[in-house]
Amino acid sequence: MSNTQGFSRRQFVSSAISAAAISCLPNGRDLFTGTTAPKSGTREIAQQSSVVLTITPSWRDQGILNVTKSPYAKLRNVPVHAVTIGNGFWAQRREINVHKSIPSMGKLLEANGRVDNFRRLIGKSTAAQRGPVYSDSDVYKWTEAVAFALQSGERPELRTAADKIVKDIVAAQQPNGYLNTYYVGDHASQRMEPKAQQWGHELYNMGHFLQSATAYYRATGDRTLLDAGIHFVNDFLLPNFGPGPDKKPLFSGHPEMELALVELYRMTGDKRQLDLAGYLLRGDSRIHVQPRDYVYHFCGTPFTSRTHLEGHAVRAMYACCGATDYYLETGDPAYWKTLNVLWKDLVSSQMYVTGGVGARSDGEAFGDPYELPNARAYGESCAAIGNMMWNWRMLAATGEARFADLLERALYNGINSGMSLDGTLYCYRNPLAFDPSGGDKIRNEWYDTTCCPPNLERTLASLPGYFYSTSGDGIYLHLFDNSELDWHLENGVGLKVRQKTNYPWDGSVEISLAPAEPTEFTFFLRIPGWTDNAEVGVNGKALAGATPGQYLPIRRRWSAADVIRVQFNMTPQFLEANPQVVENNGRVAVQRGPLVYCLEQIDQPEGVTLKDVALNLGAKSSAQFQEEFHKDLLGGIILLRHAGAAYGESAEHNSLYFRYSAEPRKSRPVSLTFIPYYAWANRTATPMQVWTPISRA
Amino acid sequence: MSNTQGFSRRQFVSSAISAAAISCLPNGRDLFTGTTAPKSGTREIAQQSSVVLTITPSWRDQGILNVTKSPYAKLRNVPVHAVTIGNGFWAQRREINVHKSIPSMGKLLEANGRVDNFRRLIGKSTAAQRGPVYSDSDVYKWTEAVAFALQSGERPELRTAADKIVKDIVAAQQPNGYLNTYYVGDHASQRMEPKAQQWGHELYNMGHFLQSATAYYRATGDRTLLDAGIHFVNDFLLPNFGPGPDKKPLFSGHPEMELALVELYRMTGDKRQLDLAGYLLRGDSRIHVQPRDYVYHFCGTPFTSRTHLEGHAVRAMYACCGATDYYLETGDPAYWKTLNVLWKDLVSSQMYVTGGVGARSDGEAFGDPYELPNARAYGESCAAIGNMMWNWRMLAATGEARFADLLERALYNGINSGMSLDGTLYCYRNPLAFDPSGGDKIRNEWYDTTCCPPNLERTLASLPGYFYSTSGDGIYLHLFDNSELDWHLENGVGLKVRQKTNYPWDGSVEISLAPAEPTEFTFFLRIPGWTDNAEVGVNGKALAGATPGQYLPIRRRWSAADVIRVQFNMTPQFLEANPQVVENNGRVAVQRGPLVYCLEQIDQPEGVTLKDVALNLGAKSSAQFQEEFHKDLLGGIILLRHAGAAYGESAEHNSLYFRYSAEPRKSRPVSLTFIPYYAWANRTATPMQVWTPISRA
Repeated sequence: MSNTQGFSRRQFVSSAISAAAISCLPNGRDLFTGTTAPKSGTREIAQQSSVVLTITPSWRDQGILNVTKSPYAKLRNVPVHAVTIGNGFWAQRREINVHKSIPSMGKLLEANGRVDNFRRLIGKSTAAQRGPVYSDSDVYKWTEAVAFALQSGERPELRTAADKIVKDIVAAQQPNGYLNTYYVGDHASQRMEPKAQQWGHELYNMGHFLQSATAYYRATGDRTLLDAGIHFVNDFLLPNFGPGPDKKPLFSGHPEMELALVELYRMTGDKRQLDLAGYLLRGDSRIHVQPRDYVYHFCGTPFTSRTHLEGHAVRAMYACCGATDYYLETGDPAYWKTLNVLWKDLVSSQMYVTGGVGARSDGEAFGDPYELPNARAYGESCAAIGNMMWNWRMLAATGEARFADLLERALYNGINSGMSLDGTLYCYRNPLAFDPSGGDKIRNEWYDTTCCPPNLERTLASLPGYFYSTSGDGIYLHLFDNSELDWHLENGVGLKVRQKTNYPWDGSVEISLAPAEPTEFTFFLRIPGWTDNAEVGVNGKALAGATPGQYLPIRRRWSAADVIRVQFNMTPQFLEANPQVVENNGRVAVQRGPLVYCLEQIDQPEGVTLKDVALNLGAKSSAQFQEEFHKDLLGGIILLRHAGAAYGESAEHNSLYFRYSAEPRKSRPVSLTFIPYYAWANRTATPMQVWTPISRA
Repeated sequence: MSNTQGFSRRQFVSSAISAAAISCLPNGRDLFTGTTAPKSGTREIAQQSSVVLTITPSWRDQGILNVTKSPYAKLRNVPVHAVTIGNGFWAQRREINVHKSIPSMGKLLEANGRVDNFRRLIGKSTAAQRGPVYSDSDVYKWTEAVAFALQSGERPELRTAADKIVKDIVAAQQPNGYLNTYYVGDHASQRMEPKAQQWGHELYNMGHFLQSATAYYRATGDRTLLDAGIHFVNDFLLPNFGPGPDKKPLFSGHPEMELALVELYRMTGDKRQLDLAGYLLRGDSRIHVQPRDYVYHFCGTPFTSRTHLEGHAVRAMYACCGATDYYLETGDPAYWKTLNVLWKDLVSSQMYVTGGVGARSDGEAFGDPYELPNARAYGESCAAIGNMMWNWRMLAATGEARFADLLERALYNGINSGMSLDGTLYCYRNPLAFDPSGGDKIRNEWYDTTCCPPNLERTLASLPGYFYSTSGDGIYLHLFDNSELDWHLENGVGLKVRQKTNYPWDGSVEISLAPAEPTEFTFFLRIPGWTDNAEVGVNGKALAGATPGQYLPIRRRWSAADVIRVQFNMTPQFLEANPQVVENNGRVAVQRGPLVYCLEQIDQPEGVTLKDVALNLGAKSSAQFQEEFHKDLLGGIILLRHAGAAYGESAEHNSLYFRYSAEPRKSRPVSLTFIPYYAWANRTATPMQVWTPISRA
């Protein structure tokens, strides 16, 4: 796990500045963003420190995670701007994201008073506070989405609107560094009190503030937000809270600050910030909550004492992110052990086939092992995003493809389903079966708790940053789409990589490499776990050893115009679930490439209802699908057709219970039509299901 | 629906006193129970009215429901004391109930301060209030259980303890009639305020008070509790609350008062009480709660606007009881229509095969249609009891056997499971699958919300009252067990009926009739819906026409020594669930007679785990069971053995998702052993399941 590659070691050690070298420069803060004193005149402009950032590389070249110096990171991020995604699957989604989703969400945050919440504090608005206690975070996540779009150079005009909001946000910060639009006025006395720490989301909000500040800085070089975040951490949190008798204890409440603190540490080198993350991950025994709340909040007890996933799914996923970030810096083996135990729990008993997590609406929580109901699935968009974020960190720690497989599964399915194809409606829940007759409206423009929409937006905006990683050995390719990488190896040699593909509709990918000079390095080509066969050739010559679920290391002296061609078998597959997932007994899911498919009622023959269909598999285990590309359907998809049976209504089956009969139910043959799960609920309200019964016949 | 039988009409009309005839006699209250003024001396003894009870028959001869005068009741209750249950299935449970359950629960109510809550108010205790806001009701339900035991003449010594508690209860009543041990002192200002009406259970508590008072009066003739209840209704509720601008609105909060008010009306003839029940069932538009709360509370909007069961299951069941009671008195067709719509909803999409109801722990609530998870089932004991109570009322309205079938299903299974065989441990939840490795303890001696234990106790104590009903035509036999009825037909002719049977273990029942004089009447013999064949003979002569799920009307001139012999086919059956009950796809439940069976891990061969078993049904639809009576097992049960398959652990099946294979899983033949569901969790902690997969082989 240690980083022993000579070149990178040398490169990074040279720029490492010890924590002791951090200097605080009073009054040195760049105030160009125009922080104004509150109208009341009773508050002074904050006396805050402008911290020297010990950053390698410069702001422009930092990835989603800046793990360039992280001693326990095996892989390093490439910056978002280094990858340009060309026309194809993700370009379509991402274009809608920056042209529709981000602008419309910005308007909704305004219309629902979320930005006025800040303006009220600086005398620019007289509107009352609106929204739940965690509303600040939604503005921050939206700002982060803009920042990632700017990192890609997309729609620079978004900066104008965001800069205005940024100004108002930092102006609302208290002189002592505290920033929150709810715990002011009548609520100020509750600030950081035990109950507010548990339920008030103060640290959660500021964790998102820091993430937003980090992304904004990396997009623009503008330190306005980042300095305000450092002010909060260094001047408000660190002197007043933490272990030791002279400080008040902290309870994370909703994990998020942990991962943000570690990322801050990666820029400042200020080990106090890393230590504070570790402290939050350990919990402080001076704060007592109900035993059930340690479960729900997924914090407050030592992270390393956790044995399984439980409680609020987003909290748990963000805690796992923070713990992995902490591990990447410290290498603490207890963390590594726990992270692997929890990851095994995730994939062996707690995750939907879509990569979604969180079975229960009640507490937005993980259920018991194998409790994975379909229609009742919670599968919050934020939790699937948390799953992706966690696996990105585990991948950085190991370079193991199982983490990339999971990241891809969540991204293409349980996350991608969360935003409508037109980019204006969002899922909070992402169930695996749905019946609109229950009155539930699954896609909505706005939620009073609007955590998911901007989370989806920042994820899509940051996507280029997930395509590649570098290591001391060379470069890893994780995600497939038409794209161009323009970056360099860790030894500094420039490298361009171009992918040409129709992925995920087609399993063939042409990868052209162009190092600035012929260089020996390893190209780690991900062979997805979902395929049963991958044929790989380099410059027309077949290459053996491609193993699904592993990276194929191709080490050679690479030159410009070298081409890797890979063909993944994408034949649709039927998946079974562990028999302990009781709702899926006797049912199968359909997957083609990285995409999980589903049935929507609207696509089935007249008179066929989803509750009365089954798949005719006969004695064959392999799926016999007809594939059809429909350019104009749901943004362009391959739909799948398969022989099935439709049961007629019978008096018996209108009963709730009836005597068992060995006779198969009477049925007629029908052709069943499957669409990708991510595209569901984009037409009319219609029943949907991912898991389809197998016909007994 | 109207009661047109000449004789009974005459009999009852003669004793009917119009509401106008009710006289209030100031200071006429019988204070022989020694109500004492509070020590403080600041309160005066209540000036309350002793109401003339327009009762027919006398207290001693009233049934569980006194529907003798109810114009829309087709059947009438017989008093509890009229049926003596002999040695057999229920005698065993009932003996434990009066000798262990009721005494031990009395001690626990004392030990947990629930009785001191009353004593505190009269200066007999200095202990602080303990327990949730609905704790008074638990004392009342316990008192009601004692009262029903006394009605059977069982353990008259229980009366001594209960009388003491009764004295303290009524002494704690406020002079204005209000009675509650929570909304006093610091909480007194919240009394009957909107929030308290919604969540405070004041009416719920007093509804149970009235039920307790009614049962106590019918057991003893002692009006102490009853007069206090009338005081509350007539002097506190009626003058201050109700429709009209001069009165404050009421919100039922937790339906219960409705059914209690109608039963009170059946004794007093005071139509204001019936009208108040109707008012609560309609809801008062002056009280606004959140839309979701009309769902949860199952009150506040007109009962007749309900279209399906939803919200808190116990609330919904009690509301349905109250609405049926209201219908029995008023014949309002809108109520009858709604009751039938809701009942159809119950049996077609909302009920467990055990008669349990309420799918969700979250809100202790009904789920969506067909949402009937097994391990996650809530199935609160109180809700199953509510289901039984409701069906008892629907049966009274119609004389239709489908209601008796449901009553029997709930009684033998979802209710009976709620109390341990030794009578000291209780289920709150009654799931249909269980894995103790989750850490859940399913049977407990005490719950802080201890609604279920005394509810189970009052139900078992009142059981004799459910065996028979009378009608103008004759008599109905609902439940089978060794027993003797000593009552009379509605024409006054004395009638004894003796059942000899080993039911539910054996399907043969010998029914001896002994009218005081030879009399023509109809003996309505219930042919349970669970049997597929019933052979009935009268005095040795076969009788045709027995139809499962209907009463067989046997009309003749009955004489002493007439004997009906009936033989129900009790061959165990496999039941399937509607395919929309997704957890039960490909699974069957086992039922024998009225008993639903289950598998407990502990009974299966070494090394066989429940999650890896299936039933081998082959091409046969009928079950091939081996039946074994075990006298010393679980209080004496017939266990069932059937051929099954045990799957070995495979690497694949340790995964959460894996490729579908048409190959059946490798398995070995095993004999699976089923026990009655009600007897589960009476040995060691061991997995259990009701629904077992069918082997594909």
